[in-house]
Amino acid sequence: MTGAADQRPIGVFDSGIGGLTVMRAVAGRLPGERLIYLGDTARVPYGTKSAATVTRYATQCADFLLGRGIKALVVACNTASALAIDSLRERMAAAGIPVLGVIEPGAVEACRVSRHGRVGVIGTSSTLRSGAYARAIAAIRPDFTVVGAACPLFVPLAEEGWVGAQDDVALSVARRYLQPLLAADVDTLILGCTHYPLLRGVIEKIMPGAALVDSGAAVAGDLERALARLGLAAPEKAGGAAREARGATATDPGATRQAEYHVTDDPDRFREVGERFLGHPIAGPHLADLIDLTGESAGLTTDSAGDRRR
Amino acid sequence: MTGAADQRPIGVFDSGIGGLTVMRAVAGRLPGERLIYLGDTARVPYGTKSAATVTRYATQCADFLLGRGIKALVVACNTASALAIDSLRERMAAAGIPVLGVIEPGAVEACRVSRHGRVGVIGTSSTLRSGAYARAIAAIRPDFTVVGAACPLFVPLAEEGWVGAQDDVALSVARRYLQPLLAADVDTLILGCTHYPLLRGVIEKIMPGAALVDSGAAVAGDLERALARLGLAAPEKAGGAAREARGATATDPGATRQAEYHVTDDPDRFREVGERFLGHPIAGPHLADLIDLTGESAGLTTDSAGDRRR
Repeated sequence: MTGAADQRPIGVFDSGIGGLTVMRAVAGRLPGERLIYLGDTARVPYGTKSAATVTRYATQCADFLLGRGIKALVVACNTASALAIDSLRERMAAAGIPVLGVIEPGAVEACRVSRHGRVGVIGTSSTLRSGAYARAIAAIRPDFTVVGAACPLFVPLAEEGWVGAQDDVALSVARRYLQPLLAADVDTLILGCTHYPLLRGVIEKIMPGAALVDSGAAVAGDLERALARLGLAAPEKAGGAAREARGATATDPGATRQAEYHVTDDPDRFREVGERFLGHPIAGPHLADLIDLTGESAGLTTDSAGDRRR
Repeated sequence: MTGAADQRPIGVFDSGIGGLTVMRAVAGRLPGERLIYLGDTARVPYGTKSAATVTRYATQCADFLLGRGIKALVVACNTASALAIDSLRERMAAAGIPVLGVIEPGAVEACRVSRHGRVGVIGTSSTLRSGAYARAIAAIRPDFTVVGAACPLFVPLAEEGWVGAQDDVALSVARRYLQPLLAADVDTLILGCTHYPLLRGVIEKIMPGAALVDSGAAVAGDLERALARLGLAAPEKAGGAAREARGATATDPGATRQAEYHVTDDPDRFREVGERFLGHPIAGPHLADLIDLTGESAGLTTDSAGDRRR
């Protein structure tokens, strides 16, 4: 199946809806690729959970996508990338599936753009506690200083849509979280959670001097290079004709429109919020029954399990 | 096993840690009872999830406690009470186990204290969307006006500990969420989520004229009456001697100290935050393997499943 015309899809998973920012970046970079997205909305968020639990959930997500015939796996979720990437790589290696997380590309990009070697990282509690970004940066630039801050209120702020650069609630929350990073005089700030790019305007207002790095955008370039290196790229590279055939335009690569979407809970809410993230309607999404989430394994009656699909 | 000296424990479950406010109220009211708590920390929060998924999770929690020999079940979580109570009652009826949720006691208490029949309800998105409080109030006082507001940022605020009545972030969030309730001139406000009592000072500052109803505290009285009515009460009613024997004091009923605690993820975080909620150390907590959460049903290797228990 590998070679210069590998039409198998690329799998992207996230703990929920935030990974759509990564989907958009991947689709913009690789408009000829088929994409399958899985959002684990039944168990979101991952960012407050233990490494063992996040690894278990991420493994189930990866297995689901593997079962749909993917040729590469993108872990859009920073927490899952921070806590479960080694385990996922080991598991997918047998199937010859490359696994890309968002931590390394974000760290590489931060090292590239930092002028004075002072890098801030914001993310979930679990991502920060893991120290994954600090380790990844130290592996490239051991001379750099890394300062982190967990920002638990940023995700609900983004989901509420309270993200305007004049929003007094968003500004007061951002001011409190970012104060230690301002005090540490960081010149670069990694947005280490899929939701945070939505708060870019607010963050820029509090830290006007810092270069912002979007890990989700950074992984798209890594993915393109990995597919080329492994001979896994789709036949139509970035082609205008192919794009037109899919009804795509320059600003709307079409790949997110053609993509297949799966969630583990509440397709309606995903469709509603997701369309705001992507700027176009989402076909589906389908309700994915991961092994943990089937009515059968939960010991429910057929009625209750059937109810889930309504 | 029933009768005037029923020593079986009472089960209390919540989506996570917030239900400890209910545990404290139950222990204060019924110091002679044995209590078992289950926090579903592997899947918290329930408040953004669908009715079917919340019902599935709540059923698994109830089954776990049933397996530990409880005589009554308290659903501390407002979202689970709003979405899953009928299903839980049906399931537990066969075992003769009464099931108490927090919605009805909260509604009854609001109807009792409201002076002008204008009641506000704050809670999670799923609780508000269910309309459960409005229905419960209408069943008692169809002439009352009920106005609701979902407050998604209140839970992370409480977990961050940003709850001081002078906290500018908490005040700006509360001002925005409560504005419609102020505009509707409510005289009574139901705190329809286990975390919200921690924000009482902030809420009182924004709505000084409203009587605040804590649904979790209200359920403790209902439980006491239900146990007496069904002949399920423990031998020692509220007794000073019995309390002293357990090392309890007037302000520390001891029942939360003696209680058995189970969580589905991260016992360390639960212990740390939970001790702040209860004001004393928590023995355990134990890691509960619900059927959905066992390594076996998740198809993990023994190593990965074992890892969870570290």
